[in-house]
Amino acid sequence: MGSREEIASNKQVMAKDYITGNPKAADMYLRNSTISLKLPPEASNAVLVKNLYLSCDPYMRGVKRRDANRLFYSFNPNSEIIGYGVCKVVDSKHPGFKRGDLVWGVTKWEEYSVINMTDSLFKIEHTDVPLSYYTGILGMPGMTAYAGFYEVGAPKKGDYVFISSAFGAVGQLVGQLAKLMGCYVVGSAGSNEKVEILKNKYGFDGAFNYKEEHDFDAVLKKYFLEGIDIYFDNVGGDMLEAALGNMRRRGRIVVAGMISQYDLDEPQGIKNLVNIVYKQVKVEAYTVYDYYDLYPKFLETILPYIREGKITYIEDTDEGLESGPAALERLFTGRNAGKQVIKLAQE
Amino acid sequence: MGSREEIASNKQVMAKDYITGNPKAADMYLRNSTISLKLPPEASNAVLVKNLYLSCDPYMRGVKRRDANRLFYSFNPNSEIIGYGVCKVVDSKHPGFKRGDLVWGVTKWEEYSVINMTDSLFKIEHTDVPLSYYTGILGMPGMTAYAGFYEVGAPKKGDYVFISSAFGAVGQLVGQLAKLMGCYVVGSAGSNEKVEILKNKYGFDGAFNYKEEHDFDAVLKKYFLEGIDIYFDNVGGDMLEAALGNMRRRGRIVVAGMISQYDLDEPQGIKNLVNIVYKQVKVEAYTVYDYYDLYPKFLETILPYIREGKITYIEDTDEGLESGPAALERLFTGRNAGKQVIKLAQE
Repeated sequence: MGSREEIASNKQVMAKDYITGNPKAADMYLRNSTISLKLPPEASNAVLVKNLYLSCDPYMRGVKRRDANRLFYSFNPNSEIIGYGVCKVVDSKHPGFKRGDLVWGVTKWEEYSVINMTDSLFKIEHTDVPLSYYTGILGMPGMTAYAGFYEVGAPKKGDYVFISSAFGAVGQLVGQLAKLMGCYVVGSAGSNEKVEILKNKYGFDGAFNYKEEHDFDAVLKKYFLEGIDIYFDNVGGDMLEAALGNMRRRGRIVVAGMISQYDLDEPQGIKNLVNIVYKQVKVEAYTVYDYYDLYPKFLETILPYIREGKITYIEDTDEGLESGPAALERLFTGRNAGKQVIKLAQE
Repeated sequence: MGSREEIASNKQVMAKDYITGNPKAADMYLRNSTISLKLPPEASNAVLVKNLYLSCDPYMRGVKRRDANRLFYSFNPNSEIIGYGVCKVVDSKHPGFKRGDLVWGVTKWEEYSVINMTDSLFKIEHTDVPLSYYTGILGMPGMTAYAGFYEVGAPKKGDYVFISSAFGAVGQLVGQLAKLMGCYVVGSAGSNEKVEILKNKYGFDGAFNYKEEHDFDAVLKKYFLEGIDIYFDNVGGDMLEAALGNMRRRGRIVVAGMISQYDLDEPQGIKNLVNIVYKQVKVEAYTVYDYYDLYPKFLETILPYIREGKITYIEDTDEGLESGPAALERLFTGRNAGKQVIKLAQE
């Protein structure tokens, strides 16, 4: 009461309509809006944040579908893009957050956002690492890698590990965690540049460009003379079929995604499921949402690795909200060179 | 030394050659042989047994293939059929077994057998239940049901459970265990007679004859309005595809077998694996051999149920070794009416 309301301009990235297939820059537009930097008294439990970094993630392809399934947030045409971000609290009606707190979680693609679903916000306690990491290695993708590899994959030292989309925001961490555990690690990626980084920077034992290979079964046989213990699957389809044919007894296929299968009119048939029986394979999908209780344990594991330089993480950062639509499109064409981040403000 | 060697006649069921596809009676022949009922001194750790009951099991289709994989025993043309049985020890050079002991485990299709692989033998301690049960509900198929349902399926009270081949040696026990746990249970089987028994004798909430259904997806939708929590799969193929489309979030597909897929020249493609991602499904195959350490716990669970009449078990018993080849063939055409057993001797 009585304090002069401060009104700020608020640029926003809007989606025009429902989207079929992968999001393209042309599906979005920029809008100039304004926002009060003080929450109204009735906004109980809400927080108002300034968005510092926004994250482009593969799951976002599902957000804007008309038939979006329950995994994803609901969406209306002509509304802001929703996604993960790193934010600074400007005003708070929530007892758990105060002005100046740094948080990461689900926000909107705009300069300032009112967040009502505060359950998805994590307070950032460690700022000696790049803040942008909380969109990737220390955020949702990192937790996805950690839960999938350790909890679903049940890895052991010496395991033979194959990762598809190994240069993605999730895959690059899975591979490094596997190497740190003493596993043999091979990854597939979509360019020779990415393959080189996997081998030379991340220490993968092998990597190949799937776009240059025609016989995935033969490639996997070459890299896995003894077969595969853990296949960390981000793509499904042909690569899953080839991996199934090369699993070892009691192998685990951790399904983080099947990006090759989402937009097919006629989904591909996988013909060798009988290998599941022959080799007593486990195929398990999961969602990171079921594992967030492990987040403190996850930080305890990953932060020291980052500080000691034992894990690195490559980001592909664009500056400014205006770059968002093109950055999101680039993610789905594989032309990003690391975890795709949009930087809005320093703090 | 000095004891007069007793020679007994020993009828045997032999396989002519490697077998492709399901075993047929014509693939086997009877042979009259003889055997000494005293083990030679050099037969250290072996036991000599009289076979009382022999078991016909689905896995036996794989035993006689030229390319038999490591799951199964090796096989040479013109050798005895190998399988599970209930036996009485006649002579023993193994400290763990003595004359008169009743055992179950892997033996041969003949009247008397020398067993060298004694690791696979379990001593029978409880004889207040039918001895033949140790080929089925209290033997390998029973352990398969128990391990698959409790250990792999991780069932909870109230779960929606679907079982294919529900009248088989494994399926009929899985269904009854699920009912005892308070699950909703529906099974598929290959005749109307079997369907009636599942509903009326085993207390399944529903059952259908898969041979009379053309749209498995529609049938499952009818029986599982809320979806399936656990699919206990014995068949693979179309039924697996239909079940995948009807799983609930975090559902478990326990793969005990994929009998529909073993002999196809061109294996069937399963097109809806993406449901694994959408519903965070786990698909897991297993082999009973990895769970035999649970055998004492298994007996503690199942024996009281049998004694109290809370679990029943239907056997289809043929008399005499001569009936073996036809009985084994019958198992693979689904014309058996319960767990297929061959009775050789009372004791």
